[in-house]
Amino acid sequence: MENTALIPVQYGLDTFYFVICGALVMWMAAGFAMLEAGLVRSKNTIEILTKNITLFAVASVMYLLVGYFIMYSSPAGGILPSLGFLIGDEHAVDVVAAGGEDAPYYSARADFFFQIVFAATCMSIVSGAVAERMKLWSFLAFAVVMTGFIYPVQGFWKWGGGFLDEAGFLDFAGSGVVHLAGATAALAGVLLLGARKGKYGPNGQVNAIPGANLPLVTLGTFILWMGWFGFNGGSQLRMTTIEDANAVAQVFTNTNMAAAGGVIAALIVSRLLFGKSDLTMILNGALAGLVAITAEPLTPSALQATLIGAVGGVLVVFSILGLDKLRIDDPVGAISVHGVVGIWGVLAVALTNPDASFGAQLLGVVCIFAWVFIASLIAWGVIKVVMGVRVTEEEEYEGVDLAECGMEAYPEFTNKR
Amino acid sequence: MENTALIPVQYGLDTFYFVICGALVMWMAAGFAMLEAGLVRSKNTIEILTKNITLFAVASVMYLLVGYFIMYSSPAGGILPSLGFLIGDEHAVDVVAAGGEDAPYYSARADFFFQIVFAATCMSIVSGAVAERMKLWSFLAFAVVMTGFIYPVQGFWKWGGGFLDEAGFLDFAGSGVVHLAGATAALAGVLLLGARKGKYGPNGQVNAIPGANLPLVTLGTFILWMGWFGFNGGSQLRMTTIEDANAVAQVFTNTNMAAAGGVIAALIVSRLLFGKSDLTMILNGALAGLVAITAEPLTPSALQATLIGAVGGVLVVFSILGLDKLRIDDPVGAISVHGVVGIWGVLAVALTNPDASFGAQLLGVVCIFAWVFIASLIAWGVIKVVMGVRVTEEEEYEGVDLAECGMEAYPEFTNKR
Amino acid sequence: MENTALIPVQYGLDTFYFVICGALVMWMAAGFAMLEAGLVRSKNTIEILTKNITLFAVASVMYLLVGYFIMYSSPAGGILPSLGFLIGDEHAVDVVAAGGEDAPYYSARADFFFQIVFAATCMSIVSGAVAERMKLWSFLAFAVVMTGFIYPVQGFWKWGGGFLDEAGFLDFAGSGVVHLAGATAALAGVLLLGARKGKYGPNGQVNAIPGANLPLVTLGTFILWMGWFGFNGGSQLRMTTIEDANAVAQVFTNTNMAAAGGVIAALIVSRLLFGKSDLTMILNGALAGLVAITAEPLTPSALQATLIGAVGGVLVVFSILGLDKLRIDDPVGAISVHGVVGIWGVLAVALTNPDASFGAQLLGVVCIFAWVFIASLIAWGVIKVVMGVRVTEEEEYEGVDLAECGMEAYPEFTNKR
Repeated sequence: MENTALIPVQYGLDTFYFVICGALVMWMAAGFAMLEAGLVRSKNTIEILTKNITLFAVASVMYLLVGYFIMYSSPAGGILPSLGFLIGDEHAVDVVAAGGEDAPYYSARADFFFQIVFAATCMSIVSGAVAERMKLWSFLAFAVVMTGFIYPVQGFWKWGGGFLDEAGFLDFAGSGVVHLAGATAALAGVLLLGARKGKYGPNGQVNAIPGANLPLVTLGTFILWMGWFGFNGGSQLRMTTIEDANAVAQVFTNTNMAAAGGVIAALIVSRLLFGKSDLTMILNGALAGLVAITAEPLTPSALQATLIGAVGGVLVVFSILGLDKLRIDDPVGAISVHGVVGIWGVLAVALTNPDASFGAQLLGVVCIFAWVFIASLIAWGVIKVVMGVRVTEEEEYEGVDLAECGMEAYPEFTNKR
Repeated sequence: MENTALIPVQYGLDTFYFVICGALVMWMAAGFAMLEAGLVRSKNTIEILTKNITLFAVASVMYLLVGYFIMYSSPAGGILPSLGFLIGDEHAVDVVAAGGEDAPYYSARADFFFQIVFAATCMSIVSGAVAERMKLWSFLAFAVVMTGFIYPVQGFWKWGGGFLDEAGFLDFAGSGVVHLAGATAALAGVLLLGARKGKYGPNGQVNAIPGANLPLVTLGTFILWMGWFGFNGGSQLRMTTIEDANAVAQVFTNTNMAAAGGVIAALIVSRLLFGKSDLTMILNGALAGLVAITAEPLTPSALQATLIGAVGGVLVVFSILGLDKLRIDDPVGAISVHGVVGIWGVLAVALTNPDASFGAQLLGVVCIFAWVFIASLIAWGVIKVVMGVRVTEEEEYEGVDLAECGMEAYPEFTNKR
Repeated sequence: MENTALIPVQYGLDTFYFVICGALVMWMAAGFAMLEAGLVRSKNTIEILTKNITLFAVASVMYLLVGYFIMYSSPAGGILPSLGFLIGDEHAVDVVAAGGEDAPYYSARADFFFQIVFAATCMSIVSGAVAERMKLWSFLAFAVVMTGFIYPVQGFWKWGGGFLDEAGFLDFAGSGVVHLAGATAALAGVLLLGARKGKYGPNGQVNAIPGANLPLVTLGTFILWMGWFGFNGGSQLRMTTIEDANAVAQVFTNTNMAAAGGVIAALIVSRLLFGKSDLTMILNGALAGLVAITAEPLTPSALQATLIGAVGGVLVVFSILGLDKLRIDDPVGAISVHGVVGIWGVLAVALTNPDASFGAQLLGVVCIFAWVFIASLIAWGVIKVVMGVRVTEEEEYEGVDLAECGMEAYPEFTNKR
């Protein structure tokens, strides 16, 4: 058979696979929004919802304008990215027409769509950690810098063919490039911002501040779990060889098993530590399992994936407790889920993938952390000087919803503020 | 290669693409339900949920019984549709067996499924605008007429090959045929129904009636955003040529960018107008961006799509304020989002598609509006005479949930009624 | 054309179709979680959410460890299954390389993923029926037995090629194998557990215990409706022949129509019986329509599917009322929706599928019910003896959330307990 007759169908399938996976990743934005809206107090709910939908819009626009260019048009093997704007129109048709083994097998625009929603996911990680006390517009200013510049630069280092890629650093779907990066930016923000009033007492005590709507948190977790099939599954980038198809099926299975492992581990650990089956820990355990498998969802067996996820589920519980000891106030546990477990995910690649080296993985962690932390600290710092990052004490007490958005999330329900 | 050997895979892919896009459009019904349930008061929540799920069922049945026949079996180029029932069994197999260039490349049943959920979407637009005061069964009676008759007739004019199609009117996925049509039916209903008690004061003041559950509204918006990928992406109708695949990828990208543009525009406008970042306006901005791009999600560049969506986001804020000035009470902003911005979407086709003419687009707007408005006014009028459309003043005060459905949405939570 | 050149694309499409349908079925877990969380009182919400996410994890792990082996590696035509662990690595590549007509046309791992989420669905049915009074860890112990052993054994009887399959029992996507099985296990649990305190009065009166959050229930229903497209649609198992593609499209259409029929039937029946349009009955009507069509979503016409669903919608209302007469306390109606209507679905196959016999269908119902009921009763009984199944009266009064999970679902909202 001439390959040329088959190309349109193959090209159609790979493109369809890509855009559907992209739609699933876009759906994760809803997951983050529900997760975070349920974990804050009712007086801060509107503002976190506003942040979640506006950050997605800002990420889409910034990544369109400059981010994609930086990430995917910079010199191979490099550290310094090129700066440019937009991406020219659809060239894939011509390239395919020119034919040859290396012809793109899917629409360039599908890849673009898939990459945009990844950039937005990275930014979604930040919003929860700085919740209940950060100014909305300062947050959006940071989103502009993060999605247009900080995220794409380190994305280029790995996925754009930069120096981390050449150094043998492996990160299938982004435990490092997306999750650790997002958590690191969040950490920088939280350090500059300080803890919520009343979170930590004078004698080292940690006061629980319960979220207002736990069903929303559960819904958000399920949404993220579902969307993660697109996040990891789409990262195989192809569906139309038997090897690729088997890989995608393995990735779906392993993604599911890692989440399951994370749930069970967090359930057991929380039961042992607290004597109760702590739902928020269990939900964070699911997410931790998902983050843990993201750097390598392909080479582990399903059983290994379960265990990698389970380690993530254990880590996340101790990390959340540990950060509170350090008085690093992260209302939703994002730094633990995406940062601490993200590091675990990156390192765990070396356990099952023979092409990975522990050294290269560590190099990746260090470079991503160092770059994102320093760049974010500078960005947050400039924003703090120029427009401030924290709402006033009175606004924090009254809730940022009225101060920033002028409305209440549940005007008929709340008993207390 | 003989095409015949390739046909089953191509046919399978195009059919799969179609049913998955259809499932995403079906999912929009959940989006409308959450959006509307969050924007009404708690005492009217059960009834709006009931309307949303029952209208979907009524739309499915009516469109099966008569709607599809009217829309797709009427004389080419015509104004008057044919009337008939159901659609015969699956003929595509035979047609494909007969072969030839024009053989259908997907299952006729997949198209049927895709069309059914479009009809339901159109009807979903109506329910929000008439919320909090309309009788449930009067609404359902209108749903029968709308989805079985009013919607299919104008759908035939464009998508069934009727006179608007011959006149060169372009409407890729239905800014006019679905969104403007739904909003027009809603407008007719609202005019007959009158405003909610207490919405407008004696001296022209407009009283805000806050929705009870804003996280639900945000969830609904994200659901609609996700479902819209199926709505616009599926409307390309094919996935298995390189040109079609590129088109679908472009449509996904542009749909996302237009929503992002709508969000940012509504954020900025609401901040400038009110001094606050109004979440409901921002969410309506996202939907406005989506409606705006629906008539032509293919020919704009991603940047142009962002701007088209942004104009939608600006329009929707001023339209919502303007309708309140006119004392047209639309609790969820559906007439503004789907009607005013639907018109913008139809007209904007002429900006980027060289095949479009401003005149033909305007003709489409006028014909759709005139037909749906007059036919709806008659239908609502007959229903008003026969069974009434508005609940009693006491029922409105107590909430339609107890009156119509005999239960409360949040029996343990509400402080006030 | 040589088939070999086409195989990778065909294999890719069938695999993609399978994993996407699997992701939709996984999404049903979120639907059950929201449905059940909305139908219980606020004091029991955290625990039902915890059950829903942990049961999914337990089901995934148990089915990986032993369930899949039992269900799909046991002797053809048999009653007694083989016991084994895991499934070896991916063999499909080799098999395809060996070629031939019977070569697998999709990744074995995709099938595995699809089967895992089915096992979890079966277990999700149980959680709602035993809500508000069962110990969390007793429930999880049962989940281990159910998903690792009870479900796979009867699954083997039909889908693994066991004696029910040989006897001509037909069950396309599992009205019997999944839904009746889950409901039967729930029934056994409820009988051992007893009714909630206060549900039934001394003189035979039935006290309504309203759910705390009806928008969540509606959301859950919509999620299930959407996920069911994957549940039924994926069960065709193939997409890449014209016949299969037409079948999948028919299945999507019929699934939607049956749900619509169930909604309308339950709406009318509840209006006639109670004088009100009862939302919970309508939502259960939708689910009943879906369960009813699951055993045979292919051979009915769309109109027949609507009617089969409508019968389900009628049955579910009377079944819910009837179980209350028998003082069988099922807070969410799961036994009626999945059990009573599951039986109807299995029997209804004989109405439209000429290959079905009423006798074989009845045999299937009897065998599935008998096995699952007796095995479950033993399992629940052992658990009762070893660790107890019911929380204390005081814990039930205070709510299982604080007792089991140490937190509240809506700490800022609730007025009463």
